[in-house]
Parts: sequence; structure tokens; C-alpha cells
Amino acid sequence: MKKFLLCLMLLALCVPAFCEEEIITLPAPDKTGGLPVMEALALRKSSRNFRDTELAADELSALLWAAGGVNRPDGKLVYPTAMNARDLIIFAFTKSAVYRYNPEPHTLTVIERGDYRSCAAVQDFGAKAAVNLVYVQDTSRWPKIDATPEQVRQAGFAHTGFSMQNVYLYAVSQGWGARAVMSMNYEKLPELLKLTKTQALILAQCVGPLD
Amino acid sequence: MKKFLLCLMLLALCVPAFCEEEIITLPAPDKTGGLPVMEALALRKSSRNFRDTELAADELSALLWAAGGVNRPDGKLVYPTAMNARDLIIFAFTKSAVYRYNPEPHTLTVIERGDYRSCAAVQDFGAKAAVNLVYVQDTSRWPKIDATPEQVRQAGFAHTGFSMQNVYLYAVSQGWGARAVMSMNYEKLPELLKLTKTQALILAQCVGPLD
Repeated sequence: MKKFLLCLMLLALCVPAFCEEEIITLPAPDKTGGLPVMEALALRKSSRNFRDTELAADELSALLWAAGGVNRPDGKLVYPTAMNARDLIIFAFTKSAVYRYNPEPHTLTVIERGDYRSCAAVQDFGAKAAVNLVYVQDTSRWPKIDATPEQVRQAGFAHTGFSMQNVYLYAVSQGWGARAVMSMNYEKLPELLKLTKTQALILAQCVGPLD
Repeated sequence: MKKFLLCLMLLALCVPAFCEEEIITLPAPDKTGGLPVMEALALRKSSRNFRDTELAADELSALLWAAGGVNRPDGKLVYPTAMNARDLIIFAFTKSAVYRYNPEPHTLTVIERGDYRSCAAVQDFGAKAAVNLVYVQDTSRWPKIDATPEQVRQAGFAHTGFSMQNVYLYAVSQGWGARAVMSMNYEKLPELLKLTKTQALILAQCVGPLD
């Protein structure tokens, strides 16, 4: 029994080493460019003809900041959330890996190496877009208020809409395309993204240069 | 019996005159201005200190076009909708009236004269904002597809998020403020806006100059 406990303790000490997350620091986002808002709105549309390519680090940095970055010293975001819940997690699928975006330190956590873009958006164009964003709501981040699960989930869709429209306007500014999609791989994604019981898929969005 | 039928026919002829809608043609929106997208995102926030004022016609025109105007010859909008449902109706509450925005002709239909802003946003700042937008989803506009009522409503929240973020960025470009709100007068609004069985409230948004 003593030996068994010792083994258990040793195992507990080893687990953190196995679980250690690979973190990538993004370059600081350029917050100065882009088309004038009204011109970006005039050009806003949903595209399909994505070029199978990868973004440069500064492009990925600006894209993710536009999607869901911190824009104030108090940690508040480029888009609003009900009750300041900040309940969305944005995952980025590229040709080389799946990342979780961490707004506060503006970093990426590597979730899985490899090309899983077609899991994020199952239609043919989804396998080619430089980045597929997957929006997940973590309801555990909500304050304890008098809202039904349905209302909380509806708010998650509104929050995702706020963020996605930023991505549309950033994409247009870059001369790229974007497309909001509902057709995710609902079977594989929860396991791939290691979602917990309080985390649920909302929508996805393809974005990147066009052919 | 003949007299009764005659009366009924006369009444039927008169009804259209009573129901005739008052339409206001908006000036063409200026689609060229605004802050660069990234600068607008850097300044995006939710405000409360609205000034009790009215917008000029060209400001209201640009605001409503940014919120939900047509940006392409095929009638598509500044924000995306699932299945191209174009299922949102945007109402504008000002100090003088309640209007329905008609994107295709870029006109306003007068729903009711008078100041009903506090119905659209019941918190104190809601009574002062130059414009309160109320977002309504009309599910009858959806194509007949295999979606549950819950999924359709969730899409309505995403669509509203797209549109509202445009309003945030337009407001920032004008040096104004905006605020998404859930606290509408759910009892009075359906009657005031003459909502049908397929039309349901989604969210509201205060927007305008600040004190």
C-alpha cells in the first residue's frame, strides 16, 4: 500500500510535465491601419474562393486582435459581452496547427499540431482558408444571474456576431475574404479542442487571402 | 342584406386609406468616411452618458445604412445572414417618432409619432440616446430548411451581433457612443411595433452623441 501511494505521488508530480502547454507569443498588433469604416462596410461580403496559404505572424496577430483582442487597460475587449462575461474562446485553425487565442497576454496556446481546417468548416472552401476561427462559449464565465441557459446561449451567438463582423471588416481592409459558417464537424471538434462540459461550439468563420 | 353588403364594400375601399403608411425617403448615405477599421476597434466601447438630442437626416441615413443597409446590386447587406434569410427588421426610436428602416429603398416607415425611446431601452440612459435601435427577427423570411426554431432564433442573435458591431464602429467614427442592451419593454414593444406572430424581439442598441 505504501508503494502504491508512492507511485501515485510520483505520477502526480509527473503529470504537470506532460500537460505543459506550448505558448506562442504573438507580435504586438498594429492598431492603426485598415479601410475607413464606411468603405469597409460598402465592400463587406461573404467569400468562398480562399487561397490555400498561411498568414505571416503579424497578420495572424492583427486578425486575432480584431476578432477578440483587449482594447483597454481594464481588460475589456474590441466587442461587447453581456454582463461583461467575456465568455467566448476563439480557436484558430491554420495549415500547421490548431491554436487557442488568449486575449489578455495576446498569445496562442498550441492545442494540436497538424492541419485540421476541414474540421472547423466542412465545406470544400473550408479546407483552404488560411485561418478558420471556431467560436466556443464557456458558460462558466457568466456571473451568477437570473438568465436561462437558452438566454445565455443566445447571448453567445450575439457575442460571436460582434466578433465575426470585426473579422469581416479587417479582412476587407486587407483585400481578403471571410465567410461565417455553421457547418463545423460537431463530432470531432469537442474532443480535438478538449472542450469541457461548460464549453459549447457556437459558429465558425473562414478568413484569408482569395484566389 | 344588400345594404349590408354595400356598406361592407365601401368599408373595404376605405381601409387602405386609413392604413396608408407614411414613408420618409432618407438622403443617400455617405459611404466614404469613418475611422480606419483598426483605430475604430481600438476605441470601441459601450457608453452610457448619451446626450438627449436628435440626429440630422444625413446622420440617421448613414447610421441605418451602417446598421443594415444594402451594399450590393443584388440587394445583399452590409452584414451576413444565414441562408441569405435577411430576417432582421431594424426599428429606430428617436425623440420624435418610431420608424421601421427599409433597407432596399433606404426609406423609413413611420410606425408611431412620439418619444418612445424608453420602451426600447428601459434603463435611464435609454430615454436620452438620440436613437435606440430595436432588432426584430421575422422567421417567415427564412427559407424552408431543416433548422429547429431554436437554431433559427440563435441565428437571429448572431445576425443582430453583426449589425450592432457595425453601429459601434460607425458611432466611434463619429465620436459618439453606443451600447447594446437587453432591457427592452417586452410588454409594450410588440403592440407598439405591430409585430406579427412570426416577428420576435432580439436586442436593442442605444447610439448617439455623448455628454
